[in-house]
Amino acid sequence: MKRVDPTVGPWLALVGAGPGDPDLLTRRAATLLGAADVVLHDWLVGTGVLALARPGARLIDVGKAKGRGSSQRHIEQLMIAHHGDGARVVRLKGGDPFVFGRGMEEVAAAAAAGIEVEVVPGLSSALAAPARAGIAVTERGVSAQVTVVSGHRLGGDNDWTGLARSGGTIVVLMAATTGPAVAARLLAAGMAATTPLAVVVDATRDEEFVVTGTLGRLATHVGPLPGPCVIVIGAVAAQARGQATLHDLVATDIPRRR
Amino acid sequence: MKRVDPTVGPWLALVGAGPGDPDLLTRRAATLLGAADVVLHDWLVGTGVLALARPGARLIDVGKAKGRGSSQRHIEQLMIAHHGDGARVVRLKGGDPFVFGRGMEEVAAAAAAGIEVEVVPGLSSALAAPARAGIAVTERGVSAQVTVVSGHRLGGDNDWTGLARSGGTIVVLMAATTGPAVAARLLAAGMAATTPLAVVVDATRDEEFVVTGTLGRLATHVGPLPGPCVIVIGAVAAQARGQATLHDLVATDIPRRR
Repeated sequence: MKRVDPTVGPWLALVGAGPGDPDLLTRRAATLLGAADVVLHDWLVGTGVLALARPGARLIDVGKAKGRGSSQRHIEQLMIAHHGDGARVVRLKGGDPFVFGRGMEEVAAAAAAGIEVEVVPGLSSALAAPARAGIAVTERGVSAQVTVVSGHRLGGDNDWTGLARSGGTIVVLMAATTGPAVAARLLAAGMAATTPLAVVVDATRDEEFVVTGTLGRLATHVGPLPGPCVIVIGAVAAQARGQATLHDLVATDIPRRR
Repeated sequence: MKRVDPTVGPWLALVGAGPGDPDLLTRRAATLLGAADVVLHDWLVGTGVLALARPGARLIDVGKAKGRGSSQRHIEQLMIAHHGDGARVVRLKGGDPFVFGRGMEEVAAAAAAGIEVEVVPGLSSALAAPARAGIAVTERGVSAQVTVVSGHRLGGDNDWTGLARSGGTIVVLMAATTGPAVAARLLAAGMAATTPLAVVVDATRDEEFVVTGTLGRLATHVGPLPGPCVIVIGAVAAQARGQATLHDLVATDIPRRR
């Protein structure tokens, strides 16, 4: 794997920013962030992480939140253009760049432009969020596997029937909007309505909170969940320590970021 | 979540050491490791990571490699005893403590002794190893989910038929010995023999190398794979950049650590 000399540009690194807490950034990510001239970051990358950038570095928000972000192609052009200008460039993505992150597309685009990219994996919220809720995604005698899916792909290629029958833990990313529909699909595929789950909101950030409930209750939840959130579904979720339940979500004014 | 003051003991932290490269440790892990009086570490945690411990700290190998490690109960007793002696204690586990790591058992044992543990998730080799091989575990139009299983549980509770049919990426941890048997199970469950796979050995360490092949070829492989390794199975593995193939493994003298 390519490894750049942080002090000598130009270079381009694709860096995972982790789940939110700047202390959960990797040491390598912090080193590169502290050396970069230009940081192209997602919208979800928090201010605490961005504060680790070199003073004077140019921070460019290329986040792809609905209706306000840059297109994938535009991001790739920016990476290549700044590198061409001689800059030390960090492309900073929330979580891990290769778990529903389209990171490999960016590596390929750079390679097509003759740039070899250093890749720094990040802590995925798919695994960090359950840990923060007190959930081990695998546990002897309870769950022998964990599957990560995206709520964004609800209409897509997931084998919900297989997932419902697997007996393993299911972690749903980017599910604030589609969470109830995901739950309904799993119920329709035969999963028990009493299956415990936890919704981890703003995992590892100061605003973090955990909502507990059941699959049946989530399927009938009206409106979006607080976001950004990760949903952990399966027997292991019975261990979750929550500050609220899905019932509370309806009754109280839980902060919403989008 | 509990957050200790690194300078003021006693405290106990359960820390993920990540996949091997000390640069892939989180900043928080490095902080606690640099402050601890006692470090209880797994066998697989590399010397590069341990070198980040405070000079003078007591490093205790409680690794559970076959026939030479401490029992789970003994590890828990050590954690509690050193904390009781007033020490700042890091329990350092390879990868992420909650992905086939039995971390929650250690948190529960400490809680039963009246100790609240700080938990620091680590980068799991389940996600870092594929990234190092150039594989995105999820990819638009190719794989909409990724499932992590353990080769140690071959006789266990995994739904191999469901996995074989899911169309998603399968990541098998701790599969050096059972890899061929895992492949045979997936073939028997209907997965195509031509399904690409990659074996990532010593991921993120200096000795890292990647072996490419197919499910059919792995099923007929004789003897253990080089270890420690992670196997990535599915269409996304066609992207893998390897230094050897499964055919080479038979023909050449690939270094083996166990």
